[in-house]
Amino acid sequence: MNVSTVAIDFQARSYNIIIGASLLDDPASYSEIPVAQTALIVSNTVVAPLYGARLRGPLRDLFAKVHEVTLPDGEQCKNWQTLELIFDSLLHNNCDRGTVIFALGGGVVGDMAGFAAACYMRGVPFVQVPTTLLAQVDSSVGGKTGINHPLGKNMIGAFHQPRRVICDLGTLQTLATRELSAGLAEVIKYGPIADLGFMDWIEANMQALMQREPSALGYAVRRSCEIKARVVAADERESGLRAILNFGHTFGHAIETGLGYGQWLHGEAVACGMLMAARLSQRLGLVDSAFVQRLTLLVQAVGLPTHAPRLSAADNAGRYLELMRMDKKAQAGAIRFVVIDAPGSASMQSAPDALVREVIDACCVAP
Amino acid sequence: MNVSTVAIDFQARSYNIIIGASLLDDPASYSEIPVAQTALIVSNTVVAPLYGARLRGPLRDLFAKVHEVTLPDGEQCKNWQTLELIFDSLLHNNCDRGTVIFALGGGVVGDMAGFAAACYMRGVPFVQVPTTLLAQVDSSVGGKTGINHPLGKNMIGAFHQPRRVICDLGTLQTLATRELSAGLAEVIKYGPIADLGFMDWIEANMQALMQREPSALGYAVRRSCEIKARVVAADERESGLRAILNFGHTFGHAIETGLGYGQWLHGEAVACGMLMAARLSQRLGLVDSAFVQRLTLLVQAVGLPTHAPRLSAADNAGRYLELMRMDKKAQAGAIRFVVIDAPGSASMQSAPDALVREVIDACCVAP
Repeated sequence: MNVSTVAIDFQARSYNIIIGASLLDDPASYSEIPVAQTALIVSNTVVAPLYGARLRGPLRDLFAKVHEVTLPDGEQCKNWQTLELIFDSLLHNNCDRGTVIFALGGGVVGDMAGFAAACYMRGVPFVQVPTTLLAQVDSSVGGKTGINHPLGKNMIGAFHQPRRVICDLGTLQTLATRELSAGLAEVIKYGPIADLGFMDWIEANMQALMQREPSALGYAVRRSCEIKARVVAADERESGLRAILNFGHTFGHAIETGLGYGQWLHGEAVACGMLMAARLSQRLGLVDSAFVQRLTLLVQAVGLPTHAPRLSAADNAGRYLELMRMDKKAQAGAIRFVVIDAPGSASMQSAPDALVREVIDACCVAP
Repeated sequence: MNVSTVAIDFQARSYNIIIGASLLDDPASYSEIPVAQTALIVSNTVVAPLYGARLRGPLRDLFAKVHEVTLPDGEQCKNWQTLELIFDSLLHNNCDRGTVIFALGGGVVGDMAGFAAACYMRGVPFVQVPTTLLAQVDSSVGGKTGINHPLGKNMIGAFHQPRRVICDLGTLQTLATRELSAGLAEVIKYGPIADLGFMDWIEANMQALMQREPSALGYAVRRSCEIKARVVAADERESGLRAILNFGHTFGHAIETGLGYGQWLHGEAVACGMLMAARLSQRLGLVDSAFVQRLTLLVQAVGLPTHAPRLSAADNAGRYLELMRMDKKAQAGAIRFVVIDAPGSASMQSAPDALVREVIDACCVAP
């Protein structure tokens, strides 16, 4: 299988995403990485034992010193306390301003290593080596980094573009099924918001994706990155268009924050959130029930949740609304939802609380 | 006394510093501030009682909601724990992405409020209202924000430019004498590195400055900002020239970190550090003893320390060197000093450890 490249164009902060079968072991994967004395590999307790050595090997040929820090695993660890482990390692190892940070792991590792890179000495270079499908198709593009706050997801962070992203598809073979499905949620997302042809392709290749056929995974990663790259390049700091990538995330973040970080995987919450946003789009008269049904079947086929959890015994919809008002897209207390305004096209819209409550009530009922 | 303006040119991130006698009470001071629903005033326990109400008044005419958070005072509080107070306030008050953060206080408040603004929702606008001389002449220009790490000063931070800086010279009248002197250290700094004429002026106007004559303070603030603006505009991210602004800071940060944050004021450490760097310049054959003597007299006249503290009973110079190797300007373990290469001109240079040890030994001896 060939190596493919997706170029991300941010003028001075442009970089390449490379996608291929065994990239970790290929010296060519490590070109275009800044020359420095020191590298720091940031990984977690699950990924480091699997792939740490395969990254360390080639890096030892490039850097005089290769340090490592292993974080605890999981969204519930995406906080300042864990971030401090990275800063402590950087400072204890006398890492200077040229130090290159490598994020080896999923979205949580990437977000935290990237944020540490953004802040250490006010900015050092970093390279993403995403080892989950979710990280390969989502967090590898766009430079969003950050940590959670008990009151809201990704509330503290920075835009910091990586110098290169190395997507080794081989790492997806060791992924837990639940993690694979969570990643497919973000793959599916690109269809309704931007590319109906890709939605057709996903439906036709669902079995191959679930069976982790490398060529199917390779295409899914490449196409997802291409779509995200096109959207993000037009709007690096998320002032407008880019927000459509948050389809499903307004409801999804409420689920993640409301249940407590780590209860549902991010992709699971996004999948369920997409169905909620699709139903909202339908109630707003933008799409028909057939489209909602089609998206529901796709989410179901991947084994992702189609029903939303209750977040409060008393006023469940009220709790959702309260959490969603904290969303970063909210303006002056008004929640702004990403809606599907036609299959393959998305936009931002507000909606009356009463309508949103109806959607929440409908989605939280057991089948 | 008139209001003067120093324009800081960073293309899309350009802003104005306004300097005048009673700016807090003048509605015109608050032009060029982004329109939003919400403002958050970040101040500390010393400054908030003095000037909080005078800032709150005019902001209430501009923002529907004006929230406040009061931090503990002092360099020893410039850490994540204190920063969290700002994030907690932002989130508890449902502050959205348009929220404007006002930093009302000295350098510590400005650095932390600016860093919180850089990170909250990946970036919200902020306005500096510096109330110390040090903050007016130093942290108001250049967009450096951040917090300390136990192992190094300002190690975690971001570049984030304010939208406007309001330097009300009246606030300098309530400054403790020790704080005024500390601020004058940074004013003095601009002479040796960039403008010998300004050094002449400071010598001639020392008495007026120490007596806080508004016109003398106004000129000192304006000229300092102009010099810093010229240097910074050429090098926003500190890749080269800008580093000369750190004259005295390599030794100074070692003093601050080595003694424990808050023992010496930043300006005190910088003053002493400038004399150490000047002596190093002399030993490197760049300036003569007359120049070192001239700078020493100036530092002495302001009541700032001319002798360095011992940081270790065992190997004092070794401890200085160890701390300085953590400096952000260090590269691959080599400390890079800002030296005066001719009076009024500075550059970056390495120096043999033995020579640096001699300088430290000479400066740490009591007179």
